[in-house]
Amino acid sequence: MVQKPPVQKPSPPSGKPTPDATRRSEKSRRAIYDAALALVGEVGYPKTTIEGIAARAGVGKQTIYRWWSSKAEVLLEAFIDLSAQAAEAAARPEILGEQAAYEIPDTGDLEADLKLVLRATVDELLDPKFEIPSRALAAEGVVNKEVGVEFVTKLLEPQLQLYVKRLRSAQDAGQVRQDIDLRIALELWVSPLAQRWLQHTGPITYDYTDALVDYALHGLAPR
Amino acid sequence: MVQKPPVQKPSPPSGKPTPDATRRSEKSRRAIYDAALALVGEVGYPKTTIEGIAARAGVGKQTIYRWWSSKAEVLLEAFIDLSAQAAEAAARPEILGEQAAYEIPDTGDLEADLKLVLRATVDELLDPKFEIPSRALAAEGVVNKEVGVEFVTKLLEPQLQLYVKRLRSAQDAGQVRQDIDLRIALELWVSPLAQRWLQHTGPITYDYTDALVDYALHGLAPR
Repeated sequence: MVQKPPVQKPSPPSGKPTPDATRRSEKSRRAIYDAALALVGEVGYPKTTIEGIAARAGVGKQTIYRWWSSKAEVLLEAFIDLSAQAAEAAARPEILGEQAAYEIPDTGDLEADLKLVLRATVDELLDPKFEIPSRALAAEGVVNKEVGVEFVTKLLEPQLQLYVKRLRSAQDAGQVRQDIDLRIALELWVSPLAQRWLQHTGPITYDYTDALVDYALHGLAPR
Repeated sequence: MVQKPPVQKPSPPSGKPTPDATRRSEKSRRAIYDAALALVGEVGYPKTTIEGIAARAGVGKQTIYRWWSSKAEVLLEAFIDLSAQAAEAAARPEILGEQAAYEIPDTGDLEADLKLVLRATVDELLDPKFEIPSRALAAEGVVNKEVGVEFVTKLLEPQLQLYVKRLRSAQDAGQVRQDIDLRIALELWVSPLAQRWLQHTGPITYDYTDALVDYALHGLAPR
């Protein structure tokens, strides 16, 4: 195992932390994340290298190898950190272990809660800071199953499980049918938004995500 | 405009067609499509070149340039041809202009019709002949908006419009709510299947697509 970099409370890789060492360590970590995200957005995943990230971050290659064993690991944590930043910017920071994710509100009104979260997701998808590196990674995942599965397992699936949790609460409250597979159900709004973003198949707006939630909860057939 | 290759009734690029010339022309067209699809699956979109396609197809570069002006055009038509082959294999060939597409059956039972078509789509997505080149192209579309939009407009959207047509018929029959945007509605089953395939987010089975249709038509909320 490679020692993980400090996330919440930075400390140097070995020895007793000192305030100066902690600041230096945190600064390097941030520079490495920024360099990794910028590089993958510019040259794509296959051409992104540890050497390239180190050069751009202004650190030695060994600084990166002390904390991570591969570029996939660096990028994974850079993306987790980016999601955490987005959550903080939205004033809804929630840390699940080391994974930052939105907590889905539970006001008792499932439709309103889902619409709110999806509107925030629209904002995030259209933010260039998020969009450019995310596209590079998503494209690699399409043709490279190993990379795709790694990032889905560690980054996307934990976020999707928050919908499962919210839907289960709604199911307990009698607002969702008992015979529904909740892991499939969430795809009725998550996947359309993802496909429009990934494949440029249509505009991404609040009206659009509101409609998805309406159709998914109430169905296309008349009641 | 570059002269288009013959699709249904092959004829040589100029002069009066003769049976031999027609056969040669058709054979070259098929070899070029096969080479383009194989190459993009092996080396990806950016490294696929007209020269590479010509070499693999055993034709001169000028043969390709006589019919197409870019690799994007060759690939687009190769994919349209591949879809036509899939439709023929499923014994449901329908030609819309030059675009082959499934016609969605209209038995009057919307739920049964959608489930049938989605099961056929599952089979197609899991067919390696389709999967490998399609992934290469989809990955390029994620990071290259021009390529993405071109292929969505000419290849994906005409297929999606078949769902719009089927849903409109169901709406006219009172089986779909009048206030539904049909172009959005179809995404409730098309996009989940597309995302599972593109991003490796879950297994693709008949039970899964049956569930999507059920949830979309009847809604997650109890009736």
